[in-house]
Amino acid sequence: MDKYIDLGFAKLDTERIKRRGYSEAVFCECKTEEQLVKIFQAFKDAGSNILGTRCSKEQAEALKKQFNADYYETARIVTLIQNPVQKTGEVAICTGGSGDIPVAEEAAITAEFYGSNVKRYYDIGIAGIHRLFDKIDEIKKANVIIAAAGMEGALGGVLAGMVDVPVIALPTSVGYGTSLKGLSALLTMLNSCAEGMTVVNIDNGYNAGYSANQINRLIAKREAE
Amino acid sequence: MDKYIDLGFAKLDTERIKRRGYSEAVFCECKTEEQLVKIFQAFKDAGSNILGTRCSKEQAEALKKQFNADYYETARIVTLIQNPVQKTGEVAICTGGSGDIPVAEEAAITAEFYGSNVKRYYDIGIAGIHRLFDKIDEIKKANVIIAAAGMEGALGGVLAGMVDVPVIALPTSVGYGTSLKGLSALLTMLNSCAEGMTVVNIDNGYNAGYSANQINRLIAKREAE
Amino acid sequence: MDKYIDLGFAKLDTERIKRRGYSEAVFCECKTEEQLVKIFQAFKDAGSNILGTRCSKEQAEALKKQFNADYYETARIVTLIQNPVQKTGEVAICTGGSGDIPVAEEAAITAEFYGSNVKRYYDIGIAGIHRLFDKIDEIKKANVIIAAAGMEGALGGVLAGMVDVPVIALPTSVGYGTSLKGLSALLTMLNSCAEGMTVVNIDNGYNAGYSANQINRLIAKREAE
Amino acid sequence: MDKYIDLGFAKLDTERIKRRGYSEAVFCECKTEEQLVKIFQAFKDAGSNILGTRCSKEQAEALKKQFNADYYETARIVTLIQNPVQKTGEVAICTGGSGDIPVAEEAAITAEFYGSNVKRYYDIGIAGIHRLFDKIDEIKKANVIIAAAGMEGALGGVLAGMVDVPVIALPTSVGYGTSLKGLSALLTMLNSCAEGMTVVNIDNGYNAGYSANQINRLIAKREAE
Amino acid sequence: MDKYIDLGFAKLDTERIKRRGYSEAVFCECKTEEQLVKIFQAFKDAGSNILGTRCSKEQAEALKKQFNADYYETARIVTLIQNPVQKTGEVAICTGGSGDIPVAEEAAITAEFYGSNVKRYYDIGIAGIHRLFDKIDEIKKANVIIAAAGMEGALGGVLAGMVDVPVIALPTSVGYGTSLKGLSALLTMLNSCAEGMTVVNIDNGYNAGYSANQINRLIAKREAE
Amino acid sequence: MDKYIDLGFAKLDTERIKRRGYSEAVFCECKTEEQLVKIFQAFKDAGSNILGTRCSKEQAEALKKQFNADYYETARIVTLIQNPVQKTGEVAICTGGSGDIPVAEEAAITAEFYGSNVKRYYDIGIAGIHRLFDKIDEIKKANVIIAAAGMEGALGGVLAGMVDVPVIALPTSVGYGTSLKGLSALLTMLNSCAEGMTVVNIDNGYNAGYSANQINRLIAKREAE
Amino acid sequence: MDKYIDLGFAKLDTERIKRRGYSEAVFCECKTEEQLVKIFQAFKDAGSNILGTRCSKEQAEALKKQFNADYYETARIVTLIQNPVQKTGEVAICTGGSGDIPVAEEAAITAEFYGSNVKRYYDIGIAGIHRLFDKIDEIKKANVIIAAAGMEGALGGVLAGMVDVPVIALPTSVGYGTSLKGLSALLTMLNSCAEGMTVVNIDNGYNAGYSANQINRLIAKREAE
Amino acid sequence: MDKYIDLGFAKLDTERIKRRGYSEAVFCECKTEEQLVKIFQAFKDAGSNILGTRCSKEQAEALKKQFNADYYETARIVTLIQNPVQKTGEVAICTGGSGDIPVAEEAAITAEFYGSNVKRYYDIGIAGIHRLFDKIDEIKKANVIIAAAGMEGALGGVLAGMVDVPVIALPTSVGYGTSLKGLSALLTMLNSCAEGMTVVNIDNGYNAGYSANQINRLIAKREAE
Repeated sequence: MDKYIDLGFAKLDTERIKRRGYSEAVFCECKTEEQLVKIFQAFKDAGSNILGTRCSKEQAEALKKQFNADYYETARIVTLIQNPVQKTGEVAICTGGSGDIPVAEEAAITAEFYGSNVKRYYDIGIAGIHRLFDKIDEIKKANVIIAAAGMEGALGGVLAGMVDVPVIALPTSVGYGTSLKGLSALLTMLNSCAEGMTVVNIDNGYNAGYSANQINRLIAKREAE
Repeated sequence: MDKYIDLGFAKLDTERIKRRGYSEAVFCECKTEEQLVKIFQAFKDAGSNILGTRCSKEQAEALKKQFNADYYETARIVTLIQNPVQKTGEVAICTGGSGDIPVAEEAAITAEFYGSNVKRYYDIGIAGIHRLFDKIDEIKKANVIIAAAGMEGALGGVLAGMVDVPVIALPTSVGYGTSLKGLSALLTMLNSCAEGMTVVNIDNGYNAGYSANQINRLIAKREAE
Repeated sequence: MDKYIDLGFAKLDTERIKRRGYSEAVFCECKTEEQLVKIFQAFKDAGSNILGTRCSKEQAEALKKQFNADYYETARIVTLIQNPVQKTGEVAICTGGSGDIPVAEEAAITAEFYGSNVKRYYDIGIAGIHRLFDKIDEIKKANVIIAAAGMEGALGGVLAGMVDVPVIALPTSVGYGTSLKGLSALLTMLNSCAEGMTVVNIDNGYNAGYSANQINRLIAKREAE
Repeated sequence: MDKYIDLGFAKLDTERIKRRGYSEAVFCECKTEEQLVKIFQAFKDAGSNILGTRCSKEQAEALKKQFNADYYETARIVTLIQNPVQKTGEVAICTGGSGDIPVAEEAAITAEFYGSNVKRYYDIGIAGIHRLFDKIDEIKKANVIIAAAGMEGALGGVLAGMVDVPVIALPTSVGYGTSLKGLSALLTMLNSCAEGMTVVNIDNGYNAGYSANQINRLIAKREAE
Repeated sequence: MDKYIDLGFAKLDTERIKRRGYSEAVFCECKTEEQLVKIFQAFKDAGSNILGTRCSKEQAEALKKQFNADYYETARIVTLIQNPVQKTGEVAICTGGSGDIPVAEEAAITAEFYGSNVKRYYDIGIAGIHRLFDKIDEIKKANVIIAAAGMEGALGGVLAGMVDVPVIALPTSVGYGTSLKGLSALLTMLNSCAEGMTVVNIDNGYNAGYSANQINRLIAKREAE
Repeated sequence: MDKYIDLGFAKLDTERIKRRGYSEAVFCECKTEEQLVKIFQAFKDAGSNILGTRCSKEQAEALKKQFNADYYETARIVTLIQNPVQKTGEVAICTGGSGDIPVAEEAAITAEFYGSNVKRYYDIGIAGIHRLFDKIDEIKKANVIIAAAGMEGALGGVLAGMVDVPVIALPTSVGYGTSLKGLSALLTMLNSCAEGMTVVNIDNGYNAGYSANQINRLIAKREAE
Repeated sequence: MDKYIDLGFAKLDTERIKRRGYSEAVFCECKTEEQLVKIFQAFKDAGSNILGTRCSKEQAEALKKQFNADYYETARIVTLIQNPVQKTGEVAICTGGSGDIPVAEEAAITAEFYGSNVKRYYDIGIAGIHRLFDKIDEIKKANVIIAAAGMEGALGGVLAGMVDVPVIALPTSVGYGTSLKGLSALLTMLNSCAEGMTVVNIDNGYNAGYSANQINRLIAKREAE
Repeated sequence: MDKYIDLGFAKLDTERIKRRGYSEAVFCECKTEEQLVKIFQAFKDAGSNILGTRCSKEQAEALKKQFNADYYETARIVTLIQNPVQKTGEVAICTGGSGDIPVAEEAAITAEFYGSNVKRYYDIGIAGIHRLFDKIDEIKKANVIIAAAGMEGALGGVLAGMVDVPVIALPTSVGYGTSLKGLSALLTMLNSCAEGMTVVNIDNGYNAGYSANQINRLIAKREAE
């Protein structure tokens, strides 16, 4: 098999699963429906599972007409599964508020797609911190925790200060005024005094889910051996 | 008495105590020692108490040579008391870390100067949140709380979510990299989901202390009546 | 009664009224009509008064179909009153221009909802400062003043320099070019030389109203005792 | 005479007085003492008056050794007068605080050098606005007003709202935290609702003085005719 | 006559013409058609000329139904003239490109409304600098020059370096990418080495026109005496 | 022939081909269809080839009705060729992803219009760097390379480190969150350690194509001699 | 044992090792030598290992006088080991250039202190990418990779695209001009298309080392079982 | 010969001359004198010419003790020539003011080191644009032009509009206030309407000189064939 499939407008990285352990994902946002169909067809022919992110409802419709694909509307993710993946370990995904759920779901579906069990803890932000404390013993059992939050973005630091596993902070663009479309939450997370937390791009649920899954499986795999 | 004293380089607002309830403070940073001595002399002659902020050690020495002034080195405040003020009520001043203490002390000395009892709770940030919980019942007894924090600046929001009195958030320039000299902490505080918290300029312990004292005394005064 | 109601997508903080003195408000912006109805129903069942902010006309329609709710269109607030609150004290709400009125109304309705008498002074900005001076004696009688302004945002500092009560500065996103969607007004307010003024997030009428009410009631309550 | 004198490291614009009405000024900051002496000598030989801005004490010493120059330390300006200029009209220069005086003096000395009568009104900022009102009738008599202010920078807008002559707003870098080295004052001034005010670069007393003088003389000249 | 007319949502500054020499303008952008009609009616009843800026086509239609108003679509200005103003002097308005014309027209109509003769020099930016040189002798005859430019914004500095009258730099939001909606042009103008130029807010044709007219008339008036 | 054609709203630089070697391009974005038709007619009458950038589909339709013009939809470019240009040399245009293709095509069509042979290498970004290595020997044969990339924007630096010809980095606004509409990619490119790379404005495919063509032709011309 | 030791200016989190698995580190930068001695004594008495970051040479001298401490000058870290930790697994630490070494060493010493084997790969940035390829097979054997880079910061993304283990991107403040003290490198890293990479604060070698160690040990621990 | 020399703290890219046509330069700023001596020795042993940038006087002294090196103080460059390079073609280097000379000299020495003839045109900025016009015919004869400017940074765009060769814009950090340490000049250059100009990092004279030389030699080489 060639190392990539050249479609002219795109060069599909078919070698990635061998090199990196997971297949390439498709960023749907800047692509036409026609391009997406071509990409999905090529990956399908190559026998890959396919994950498409930032997929609009219209794009999903077009893909579902041609393929046996699943669409997760809140997460804006479309998937095509040809080789079922066994889920292992556990990733906990927490949000500060309800508004952070779409980004958290992108992380959740991604982590599940690549092989992690996921538990969701939504709307447990610091304005009512007893909700977080009520769940903390359960959250701590995960191998990795994702903390999604917009506005002040303090959830991640509070969580990281109470657990002994890695926390991936996921800033969201929820908020207004000085939230600066997620920059404020991002800065909060980068400046946290609570070590053991690392950060991804604003609204990048995909990378948060991918990274959490990668760490979770490395821990769980060895665990299982 | 005139409404202000004109020194040419400065016009001292002697009417302020009548108009606003408290005497004018002196911002020492851009002034020469000679100018400071003139200003202190004029206010002294007018019978006022005097508070000088951002006062260097050298400036303080120069003033102490001429006046019976007190210098608070950590807070960088110099005071001259001619009419002792009765302290009432209570202001709680909390910091996230040890590095925030100089700014917190500026707030504390200011609030005491203008007539508030002050209690200090230093280094109780969210990286070890049990330290905050250990003190919360005591903190809640104050009429107003000041939350000074740099870096991620999450202390204020966590505090505000647990109390029923006003919280004044005081961002400090402690940190490095993306702390952006206090801008990150400021943004965190402005974006807090915990209502009942308002914010002052980075490192502006003076205004935090002034505002806390003003609110505390308004509550306490009525209380005392 | 449990400390919170778990709706999955939201965890309602029913303990808040006991802990903080006031019930939780609902941020409508990121929620579906269906979610809002569920949240209102749950709070209604819990016997709470409910305040919904940033509520669109469509969301309000949906809620009014199910509940005996009131909608304040300019303020974009929806309320459901089950336990009438006695209004006490006085909050003065001022704006620099007409464009600031929607944000000021969010503050006003919030302060009234939580129990404050409110007086409105709109369009008294510094371009025609005699309008402000004409009203200043009346404004000074309030326990707390809110100063809402966009563009240069100078109203708060001018006001704070003339009164002996706390001023809450409320920057609005009114303006264009270098107003930077309210950042310019925010910076003006944070840098004010007039002490006794604190600041909230751009367009956050809700927090301005909540904070003003909280301070007003603490002063008025003691006053009444 | 040639249109410029070529010193290699500098090309002196000797044609400027004919083209623009005023001789070229020398920006001393990035120049060695040796270069400054060469430039002053060349302009002296050309029979020009010379104004050097941002001139350090050391640079001034070096120039005074060679030339019959005057140094204004607060303004950091050095001048060499070969053709006395008759002063006409009037420019009013106001500052918000004492810290703004050095920048205001740069404007004042520049305006005087180029031929304006200057009146100074220092420390009349809005924190004690009665000081400004006390002087307003006198200030209004000028042909042009310069308003120098740092921190919140509101002085210019308040002034412009009360007069019928042009106001040049001169932001200074006085302040800390969110003053952002003068950016906050600059934004305030650019966003002012009070029309008839224009703005120059932060700490650019030279351009404020030059522009004020230019307008003042155009008005006064015609006046005199 | 009272010093202002109180419409509740607006307080019209009827004293302005006496205090500042020109009547108040109406910023239409945030106002409803109903509010605009009320404001125009009140000013009309007071016998004023009226200038409305940032007026949409729809708003203009509504006003023209009720009043004998004129609408300048490119400038987005609506006017109602009750007392014709005699035009005097001359203001030159230049633009770098065609895209800057709407903002330049706002300045032009404003200057004409308040009493200046205006000459327009459009699309003479530095990419083809011979177009500017071709017109410079004519431009120099004006009492004041407005230089409107977006993108790099260099027109103002080049102009100011060649003339002996005041230049008002008017940055526009024309451009993309790093033009940052006019911030780049604004910064260019503020940093110009060419003294005698002052700057207004991005896209603020109104203030540029007002300020230019004010200076022009002060020069011309004395000229005429 | 005159040095420019004056259409009032535009002054067409007909001298440019003589002065700069290439005819003026038309920036369509801020122009009405009527204005575009006038401009095309004038240039056509002057016998020029015409290139219009940022041309919408609607504008293109209007021009094609009147002229024998070609429209490149992806590139948003319209052209009218009256004097066919001989293509020489070679420019390589690379993109990091598929989303960068529209900007890359603007560069490609521009370079071809002005006389360069162009080879396209799309979607060869660093996430699958073997795709780049697979093509590098071919890419290196060009006289100039354009590297278009959004998001992290690392493609240019990696390319520049492997070749001995000039690289023009072309940041695109593709991305979200901290991509800041292309600013992140721009900064990456400006900070590259790989010397021999220069940068153009975000999404400015036109200037990248123009500059690449200019360098390519200077090399090729001499080559051909 | 109490949950924390209260020194007044600091509250030492002695419970942390139990709660989080690792002892609290000391941020030396804002502390006096006297405070540091007190903190080290208290932790020593509590039987902890101690890690002090951002420790100046002078501070280290003061601590070494009292304790059997080790100082790593390049890393600016001081340690006091009372309970030797067994090193397991492997962390690879890479830098783009030589200037990034101090920050990388902070990460390296931290990871070693907490129990990881560390391999260093310095100066393998993309300007000479063959240096990276020469080492990649060795680097890939680690459980976690840290990529430290300033300026354009592209190293992390290139690395992440070639490996199947987590990459922690560590931006450094090395550079000038548009490097904006590390912000440019940070943005590059956050925007990387290469998933599986997460980011820490600029120059925060400590958190990079802590997080890498935490993940490495979780993988290695299970591995060892 | 190996592809690089591994000194541990640095990996010297000895293959670069073959791959890229020119030897690697040494960025001296973050290196100790000891490290610099080791690097120079290694390159010397490899028979390379060596260029060190941002070299302090002290570093240069240390190198001159060991090697027959030349130091250019204004440019802060140190060189060691083992294989004299024949200079060809011509690069013109222009500056707006005298303050830009150090950065321009860095570009000039670099271009000369790598084999270009360089002509310098200093202090020809737009405030006295006749100085530029006086030289333009001479400047146009170069194969490439470098335009170094700080503050408003308009020189590059004016130049590019008048010539038919590539212009490399080199922003410098000269200025104050809103010059933002060169960001304003950078933005001006990126937004220029004058096509054919590309930009390098602020104060990066090295890359400007390298890129200009690279283009110049490609043109001249073919020319010579």
